[in-house]
Amino acid sequence: MGCATALELAARGVRELIVLERAIPGAAASSAAAGMLAAQMESADDDELARFVRARDAYEGWTDSLRDATGIDVGFRRSGALALVRDETAMAAARARVERQRARGLRAELLDRSQALAVERAIGDDVAGAAWFPDEAQVDPPQLLRALVAAVSRAGIVVRSGTTVSSLVREGDRCVGVAVDGRETIRADAVLLAAGSWSSLVPGVPDDLPKVRPIRGQLVLLEERPPQLRTILFGDHAYVVPRGDGRVICGSTMEDVGHVRGVTAAGAQRILASAIAMAPALGTAELSKTWCNFRPHVPGREGRPLVGASPLPGLFLATGHHRNGILLAHATAQEAAAAMLG
Amino acid sequence: MGCATALELAARGVRELIVLERAIPGAAASSAAAGMLAAQMESADDDELARFVRARDAYEGWTDSLRDATGIDVGFRRSGALALVRDETAMAAARARVERQRARGLRAELLDRSQALAVERAIGDDVAGAAWFPDEAQVDPPQLLRALVAAVSRAGIVVRSGTTVSSLVREGDRCVGVAVDGRETIRADAVLLAAGSWSSLVPGVPDDLPKVRPIRGQLVLLEERPPQLRTILFGDHAYVVPRGDGRVICGSTMEDVGHVRGVTAAGAQRILASAIAMAPALGTAELSKTWCNFRPHVPGREGRPLVGASPLPGLFLATGHHRNGILLAHATAQEAAAAMLG
Amino acid sequence: MGCATALELAARGVRELIVLERAIPGAAASSAAAGMLAAQMESADDDELARFVRARDAYEGWTDSLRDATGIDVGFRRSGALALVRDETAMAAARARVERQRARGLRAELLDRSQALAVERAIGDDVAGAAWFPDEAQVDPPQLLRALVAAVSRAGIVVRSGTTVSSLVREGDRCVGVAVDGRETIRADAVLLAAGSWSSLVPGVPDDLPKVRPIRGQLVLLEERPPQLRTILFGDHAYVVPRGDGRVICGSTMEDVGHVRGVTAAGAQRILASAIAMAPALGTAELSKTWCNFRPHVPGREGRPLVGASPLPGLFLATGHHRNGILLAHATAQEAAAAMLG
Amino acid sequence: MGCATALELAARGVRELIVLERAIPGAAASSAAAGMLAAQMESADDDELARFVRARDAYEGWTDSLRDATGIDVGFRRSGALALVRDETAMAAARARVERQRARGLRAELLDRSQALAVERAIGDDVAGAAWFPDEAQVDPPQLLRALVAAVSRAGIVVRSGTTVSSLVREGDRCVGVAVDGRETIRADAVLLAAGSWSSLVPGVPDDLPKVRPIRGQLVLLEERPPQLRTILFGDHAYVVPRGDGRVICGSTMEDVGHVRGVTAAGAQRILASAIAMAPALGTAELSKTWCNFRPHVPGREGRPLVGASPLPGLFLATGHHRNGILLAHATAQEAAAAMLG
Repeated sequence: MGCATALELAARGVRELIVLERAIPGAAASSAAAGMLAAQMESADDDELARFVRARDAYEGWTDSLRDATGIDVGFRRSGALALVRDETAMAAARARVERQRARGLRAELLDRSQALAVERAIGDDVAGAAWFPDEAQVDPPQLLRALVAAVSRAGIVVRSGTTVSSLVREGDRCVGVAVDGRETIRADAVLLAAGSWSSLVPGVPDDLPKVRPIRGQLVLLEERPPQLRTILFGDHAYVVPRGDGRVICGSTMEDVGHVRGVTAAGAQRILASAIAMAPALGTAELSKTWCNFRPHVPGREGRPLVGASPLPGLFLATGHHRNGILLAHATAQEAAAAMLG
Repeated sequence: MGCATALELAARGVRELIVLERAIPGAAASSAAAGMLAAQMESADDDELARFVRARDAYEGWTDSLRDATGIDVGFRRSGALALVRDETAMAAARARVERQRARGLRAELLDRSQALAVERAIGDDVAGAAWFPDEAQVDPPQLLRALVAAVSRAGIVVRSGTTVSSLVREGDRCVGVAVDGRETIRADAVLLAAGSWSSLVPGVPDDLPKVRPIRGQLVLLEERPPQLRTILFGDHAYVVPRGDGRVICGSTMEDVGHVRGVTAAGAQRILASAIAMAPALGTAELSKTWCNFRPHVPGREGRPLVGASPLPGLFLATGHHRNGILLAHATAQEAAAAMLG
Repeated sequence: MGCATALELAARGVRELIVLERAIPGAAASSAAAGMLAAQMESADDDELARFVRARDAYEGWTDSLRDATGIDVGFRRSGALALVRDETAMAAARARVERQRARGLRAELLDRSQALAVERAIGDDVAGAAWFPDEAQVDPPQLLRALVAAVSRAGIVVRSGTTVSSLVREGDRCVGVAVDGRETIRADAVLLAAGSWSSLVPGVPDDLPKVRPIRGQLVLLEERPPQLRTILFGDHAYVVPRGDGRVICGSTMEDVGHVRGVTAAGAQRILASAIAMAPALGTAELSKTWCNFRPHVPGREGRPLVGASPLPGLFLATGHHRNGILLAHATAQEAAAAMLG
Repeated sequence: MGCATALELAARGVRELIVLERAIPGAAASSAAAGMLAAQMESADDDELARFVRARDAYEGWTDSLRDATGIDVGFRRSGALALVRDETAMAAARARVERQRARGLRAELLDRSQALAVERAIGDDVAGAAWFPDEAQVDPPQLLRALVAAVSRAGIVVRSGTTVSSLVREGDRCVGVAVDGRETIRADAVLLAAGSWSSLVPGVPDDLPKVRPIRGQLVLLEERPPQLRTILFGDHAYVVPRGDGRVICGSTMEDVGHVRGVTAAGAQRILASAIAMAPALGTAELSKTWCNFRPHVPGREGRPLVGASPLPGLFLATGHHRNGILLAHATAQEAAAAMLG
C-alpha cells in the first residue's frame, strides 16, 4: 500500500516522497499472499462486488504499466475461478450468487459436474457442481512487490529501509510527521499509515481509530510436474491457485494468534486435506514450501478497509484490507493519493 | 552400515580399510531416519523379536563408546513407546503382542485409557488404551552419523567421498575389488556392499542376489514449545518420536516410487493427520521441516536383511534392512565384520 | 536434453516415445544452471562461435513456441553481456575477441571505462574497460524446465519418473532397449543417452565411449531491492546474471569432486568476492540461496559434446555439454532427433 | 532474559508470573546467537573481566540445573579459545591481555606458532601465534532456549505468545502494568523490560532511558565431515565456534541497519574469508545455513547493559547486553530478580 500510493502520488506530481520501511521494502507481508484477484468470489455484498470487480478489471492495465516501467512481468493471468459445490445447500448458495452477479452484467455460470469437469478435469469425485467465474484472475505477489519496489526506485522516490516509526508527531490537532528510531523527526505535509496488520501498534495512532488485528493465514506451495490444474478452485475455507507453470498455492487459515509467525501441523494438514479433496491429483504434487502472512483485520467493519483521511488532520490511512490487500492495492493507492492531495 | 562395519573391522585389527561414498559420508540416507529403536513394536515374529531386542539393548553401550571416542552425544534415550489402540480388534492384537513378549521375559503392559494417560497425557480422545513398552528407545540419526564419521576418521580409516563404483571387479569366480569412476581399480581382499536402497544398482552385482528396492518414507519435523510429548507413539501406519527437547519426528509413508526424492501433499497430509489424531496438542506445534528417505527393501525376504557372505566369494553384504537400519546398524556391523574375517 | 529431444521427435511425427527419469523430470541438474546464453563469451574457437551464436539466435523462437504450447514464459531476455577488463593484458585479449567477432559480422564493442559505465553503472572502481556483446541473452532454467515438462506432457509423450536404467540391452551388435530397475526391459528402436554428468555411469554404456565426468559448479542467488544491475557481467572465472527483477545469479566454480552435492565455504566465498568486485552494489544484496550443479565434462574433447550416433548401433547420444547445456539444448535436440531418424 | 528472570523469580517463591512474547518464546533473537561464553576474550576492562568470568564459571551449574529440570542438554563445553595473532602489534596486545589476566589468577597463555598448532592443528599458515584461554566455553543457543522454555513451563509460569505490548501503563509516577494488543491491561507489581534490541520501541518506555539500538550480526553455519576443529578461534572481527560434532558457527558482522533482517553478500563473504583465513580446512566445509540476529546495543554505555531498577518505579530492566546476552543471561536474571524483589 505504501509503495503503490507513493507511486500514485509521484504520478500526480508530488515531490519529496519518503517511504519508510522497517525491513526491506516488499520483502514482508504483501509478498506472502496467494495473489488471487477473486472479486466475484470474495465479495460479501453488492457494494463490495462493485468495488472488487472494478479493482480486478483495472488490474491488467496497472500491471501493464508496471511492466512498461520496470520490465518485470507480475504474472497477471485471467485463469478463472471455480467455486466447488458438494451438496444441495451449497448449490443453492452458488446459484444465488451466480444469479445476482449475472443480473449485474457479470459473467458467471452454474455448472453441473460434467460441465465443471470440462472447465477443470482435475476436480474430485465428490464435487457435484460449481459456480464458474471466468473473469477471476491472479497475480504473483513476490513479482508484484519486486515490480513496485523497482518502479518506486525509478520514480526517484526515497525509500528508507530499516527504520521504525517510534511515534507519530503531533502539533496541536494535527499530525505533522513521524519520529523514527527514537532519534530523528521527519516532518511531512501528509503521513500515510500503511503498516498492514501492525497499523494499530504504531505509537501515537489515535485511540479512536478502529483497531487492526493480525489474522494469520498459512499457505502451502505445491509443485505439479507436469502442470495439470488450470483454474483457481474454491472450497470450504480453502482455495487452490495454480500459477500455470506447475506451482500451485494452497491456502489458507484464519487465526487470531497475534504476530506469531509459523506454520502449524494442524494448519498445514487442513490446507492439504482441502486441496486434495478439491483436486485429488494434487496428492502426488511435491510439497515445496510453507509460510504464513498476517492479514490486517478490523473487527466490526465487515471487511471495509480504512482508506483515506483519518480523524486526525495530516494522517491518512491505507490499511485494514484483510484478505483483499493485493486485489485492492491499486484502487486504494488511487483513493489514498486523492485524499492526501485534498 | 559401511562406516559402522569399517569401525568394527578396525577394532578387530584390520588395516587398510577404505570407505567409498558417492557423496559426503553420513550426509545421505541414514541420517534421514526417525531413529526409533523400536524392537518390540517393529518385530514381526519371535526371531525378529529376539534379534531386535538384542540390538536395542546393546545400543546404549555402543553409543557410549562412540561418545567416548568422539565426544559426540547421539541422543540415545529410553523414552518408551506406546502403541495406541482405538478399537476392540486392535486391543486384541495388542494383548496378544504384550502377552507373547512378557512370556519371553520382556517388559510390556496392556494399558486402559486412564493408564495410558498416566504414561502420556497428550494422547487423543479416541484412544481406548495402549500397549506400553517402557524399554523402547531412540537415537538422533544425524548425530549418530556425525559420530560415526568422526570415529571412522579418528580410527585412521580412509574415506573417499565423491566416488561412484562403476563396477565390481571379478577375477575368475571371485570379487577382487571395485572400479571407481570408470578410471581406477581398487583391489581388496573383501568388498562390502552397503549401498542401502541403491545396492542392486551397483554394476556387477551378481544377478542372483535378491533385488533391493527403495521404499520411500516421508517424514515431518514438528517443534513443540514447550515440549509436551514424552514417549514414542505408534498408530496405524504412523508414529511420533519426541526428542525430549520440543522436536518431534513424525512418520512415515511406504511408497514404491523409485528414487524420486520429495515430499508429497498426500504424504505430508496423512502423516500430520495421524500425528494429530494420536496427540492433538501437536496440532499447534510448528511444522519445521519435511524430508524423505529410501529404505532398502528386499521383496520376498519378509524383512530379513542381506548380511554376511554373498554367493560370490570376496563380496559381502550389509543391506536390505528396510525400516530397521538404524536399529540393526551395530549388530549388522559385527556380523558383517565377522563374516569378512572368516 | 531428453525432454527436448523427445519433443523434437514428436514434432517430426514419432509415436511411442518414452522419457525415463530417475527422479522428477526437470527437477534435477538442468534447472540448476544460471541460464546464460553467452555464445560470444563462452566460445573457444571459430567453430564453437558459429555453433553457439546459431543456437543463441534460434533460442527466442524456441522459447516462443514453448510459451505458445504451454503458456509458460521462460524468461528469455537479451540483456547483453559485459566482459570486464582490469589490466592491459586482459584488454588485449578482449580487443582480439571483439575484432575477430566483428570480422564475422557479430555485434561486439571494446569499451573504455566511461563507455562501460554507460552500459552498466554498477561496475567496480578497478574496471578499466570491457568487451560488450549486446546480443548475449539469458533464460530462467527452472522455468525452461517447467515449460519443457509441460510441453512433453501435452505432446502425449510418456514420462516415467523414478526409474533407474539398470542396463542397456544389447542383441548382437545392437542396442535394442534398456532394462529398468532390474526387473523390466523396455525395447526401443533407438535409445538416447542423455544422462548428463551421470552418462558414463549407466551400466552397459560401451567402454570405448569417451568418459563423462561431473564438474561441480556452485551458484549463489542474490536479491537486490530495488534491482540495479542490467547486464550479464563476466570476470575472471566468475559471472553475474541479473534476471531484471532483482534476482541475480552469481557463479561459479569448476570442481572435479565427483557427485558430492554441496556448497562449500571456499566456493561461496570466491563467488561472492568476485561478484562484489565486479559490481560493488551487490555487497548489500541479500544472500537468498546457494546450490550446485554437475556439468557433464568430457576430458580431451575440448568442449565438444557427444551428440548423435554412437559406435553402438541403436544407441544415440546427447550429453557432455559441460557449461553449455542450456545454450545448446534445442540445437542438440534437433541434431539428436535427426540422427535417430536416420 | 525474560524466561531466565521468570525462572529465577519462581525459584525465589514468586507466584503469578507472566511472560509476554510477541512470537513463540525462545524462537527469536537469543536462539540465533553463536553461543560463545568468551569472558576473557570479550571483556574490555577489569570490571567486565570480573563480571564475565564470574558469569562463565557459573554457567555449568546453571546448565546442569536446566538439564536436571528438563532433560535437555544445552551443549555446554569448555572448548577453550585461541585468539590468533598475525603480526607484532597484535602479539603485543595479546601479551598484555594474557599478562593482565594471569595477574588476576586466570588461566591464559601466550603461544608461539608451534604451540598454537599443538592446541589446534587447523590454524592457517600466516598465524604467528595466539593467546590461549583454556577455560573459555560455549553453549548451543537453540538448545538453551528450548531448555529455558521447557523449564518455564514446568515451573508453572504462564507464557502468553503472540501478544504485543501496546503500552506500559502508568498510574501517577509508577508503572503498574502493560496494555497488550490495544485491548487488555495486565496489572503487575513489577514489570520487566526484556525486549532485547526492540526495548526502546515499546510504547511508554520513559524518554530518559538510554536508547537501545539493534546491531545486526550475520552468522554462517558450516559443516565439517569429519569434524576437525576443536577450539574457538578469534581473529580480527570474526570468530569460529566448533560445536565438536562437525557443526561450526562462524560470525559475525556489526551493522547499524535497523531491524532489516537478512544476510548480505558482503557480510557472508567477509565472514567466510575470515574463517578460512583462520582455519583453511574450513574451505571445504559445507555451507549449511546463514542467518542474522539483532544485538541490543546502548550507545554511550561502553557495553554496560541495562539491568535492575529503572528511573520509573515499577519498571525493571534486563536489556542492552549487546554481544554478551547469552553469557550474561543467568547473572542478569539473578540481578533483575533481586531488584524486583527489593
